[in-house]
Amino acid sequence: MSKMTIGIFGGGQLGRMMAQAALPLNIQCTFFEASTDCPSAVLGQVISSQEENGLEKFMQSADVFSLEFENTPLTDVDQLVQSKKIYPPRQALAIAQNRLLEKSLFDELDIPVAPYRAVDSLESLQQAVSDLGLPIVLKTATGGYDGKGQFVLKNKAQIDEAWVELGAAKSLIAESFVQFNREVSIIAVRGQNGEVRTWDLAENHHHHGILSHSIVPAPNSLHLQPIAEDYITRLLNHLDYVGVLTLELFVTEQGMFANEMAPRVHNSGHWSIEGAVCSQFENHIRAVAGLPLGSTKTIRPTVMVNIISQHPKTALILALDSAHLHLYDKSEREGRKLGHITLMPNSSDELTALCRKLAVILPEPLALDAAMQIRF
Amino acid sequence: MSKMTIGIFGGGQLGRMMAQAALPLNIQCTFFEASTDCPSAVLGQVISSQEENGLEKFMQSADVFSLEFENTPLTDVDQLVQSKKIYPPRQALAIAQNRLLEKSLFDELDIPVAPYRAVDSLESLQQAVSDLGLPIVLKTATGGYDGKGQFVLKNKAQIDEAWVELGAAKSLIAESFVQFNREVSIIAVRGQNGEVRTWDLAENHHHHGILSHSIVPAPNSLHLQPIAEDYITRLLNHLDYVGVLTLELFVTEQGMFANEMAPRVHNSGHWSIEGAVCSQFENHIRAVAGLPLGSTKTIRPTVMVNIISQHPKTALILALDSAHLHLYDKSEREGRKLGHITLMPNSSDELTALCRKLAVILPEPLALDAAMQIRF
Repeated sequence: MSKMTIGIFGGGQLGRMMAQAALPLNIQCTFFEASTDCPSAVLGQVISSQEENGLEKFMQSADVFSLEFENTPLTDVDQLVQSKKIYPPRQALAIAQNRLLEKSLFDELDIPVAPYRAVDSLESLQQAVSDLGLPIVLKTATGGYDGKGQFVLKNKAQIDEAWVELGAAKSLIAESFVQFNREVSIIAVRGQNGEVRTWDLAENHHHHGILSHSIVPAPNSLHLQPIAEDYITRLLNHLDYVGVLTLELFVTEQGMFANEMAPRVHNSGHWSIEGAVCSQFENHIRAVAGLPLGSTKTIRPTVMVNIISQHPKTALILALDSAHLHLYDKSEREGRKLGHITLMPNSSDELTALCRKLAVILPEPLALDAAMQIRF
Repeated sequence: MSKMTIGIFGGGQLGRMMAQAALPLNIQCTFFEASTDCPSAVLGQVISSQEENGLEKFMQSADVFSLEFENTPLTDVDQLVQSKKIYPPRQALAIAQNRLLEKSLFDELDIPVAPYRAVDSLESLQQAVSDLGLPIVLKTATGGYDGKGQFVLKNKAQIDEAWVELGAAKSLIAESFVQFNREVSIIAVRGQNGEVRTWDLAENHHHHGILSHSIVPAPNSLHLQPIAEDYITRLLNHLDYVGVLTLELFVTEQGMFANEMAPRVHNSGHWSIEGAVCSQFENHIRAVAGLPLGSTKTIRPTVMVNIISQHPKTALILALDSAHLHLYDKSEREGRKLGHITLMPNSSDELTALCRKLAVILPEPLALDAAMQIRF
């Protein structure tokens, strides 16, 4: 039986979990990553992007390609596509890497977004403030994540300061500040035959810009599910996308606004390893390999909690009824994602009790606290 | 975070699935196996048992030891236990490797077995036939599997022939032929603190001595579950066992008879990867690592179908709703276990339909056929 190899740009925990899903299908992965000592290394060959002719070697290492790192250089992808296939398509990656292209695609496909303006000079920034009112968030069009490359403008006196800080980027976007009740994400997969399947909406809770936990299905969101599915299906079909795509949405009084898309498996979909019939990782692999997609049905309500900065004691986590632990084999560092915990409680009360326990066990509990109350 | 290493005697698909379960817990495995090109090799270092000082190297490779191969030589284990710990304990392995010791333990613990006699001469064989009546099955006390090392004696004229064929083994067992309705297996895990958890009974269907498929929970077996749990708990506690133990039982008109035990994870427990909250593989790893045990609850009724001799087309399997495919990365050979498929149907009718489809898709469908009818 010949074994297919999928080459993945990036070698972090997303690649690790993709390779774990690929293994039982007899599909192996290779990875293209700066450091060969990365979370994916235990499951496949890592070709260093620092190595001479690294990209050439990586291109020779696999039959078909994908990515887990959305900032994969487009120049690398351009070289690759001359002789090999990559899923998702280059265009999806290019758009996801540029906030202006992304918003303009959302506009084109009638997916609601918060009002925004392109900014490329002090004058256009002043105009944007005048058009949109304050507060606004000024962001670089490319690069930046976890709050870097952003400036929250609350009054006109800050315009010059914001321009001094970010103006060098030349291409910026000014976005109206969205008063949202909560953030949800929809994850979907599209096969090579155009079939689309979507998972249930996740409700995402952040702490200082880092995802703390996701609840699936997102509580009180049955009315939002078909709308979100419609939005992401428009994106998938327009882009002739293959693989897993994630769309983050703000839920406001005026309905849902698209925040951003990620052309890859997503932290808010980790719950699906245990919580769905077929996980985001397996379905991504299936799509890239040209295989039929698996069911995205939720088996039961699931909560995914991130492990950040420091490891908890493994024995304390595993003593929690129904807890699944996923460690990424990373060393501790402030703000770093080291693993996640999946909980599949029988009731809201049980979930609340489990999350309260986790708030005490986790060295960095983020948005969990010992008095929290969670409702499905 | 220091990474624990578990050294596993054997490197087949059971070791592969153990290592898959260990990976998210940041536990790595090493393997001791004749060929370094084995199903487990993709997940950890394989130390060849053919290599000079192989056992020494293997002993140095891990913190704690276990096994996936029940015919692990006791002499190897004896050398190991001088400096390292192995779970399950040596005693459990020694008993499981000898049918006479095994039956005598079942007797000691009041676990019903079919009438049997020890045979070590032609005279004692004649006496056994006289005591037990015919037919009987004559087996070597040690070695032999999948019908090898066995002789079914139907009439007295065969006594000499049976003795000629098997007498050289010196130590034999003559067992009454059990008229059983079906075979079930109970799998349980015991932690280092003595905690015992059991999975639901599996109903096992064979074809020419090879497991074809297992249905869990075993249909119409709620009344048998507590009895089987009692039997296996007696074994676990008596042996001060740590890890997963399997007990095969015949269901007869006179109740259940123990057939044999396997001191390891078992083919009839592969369903638990998707079908139970915590699989036999993860719980075995947890027990060996001294971690708390996970819930053994069944998530939903599950059927596990073995892939034997030849690979089916992957795309045909994955197109079946709810099907999970587990390939072991083995080359095709008559009678060889190459992988398994897990089905989690919504109803007996859906299960019947899925199994009928599999009967057509699988090159070697074993006991599945296109007219079969399965009931939970």
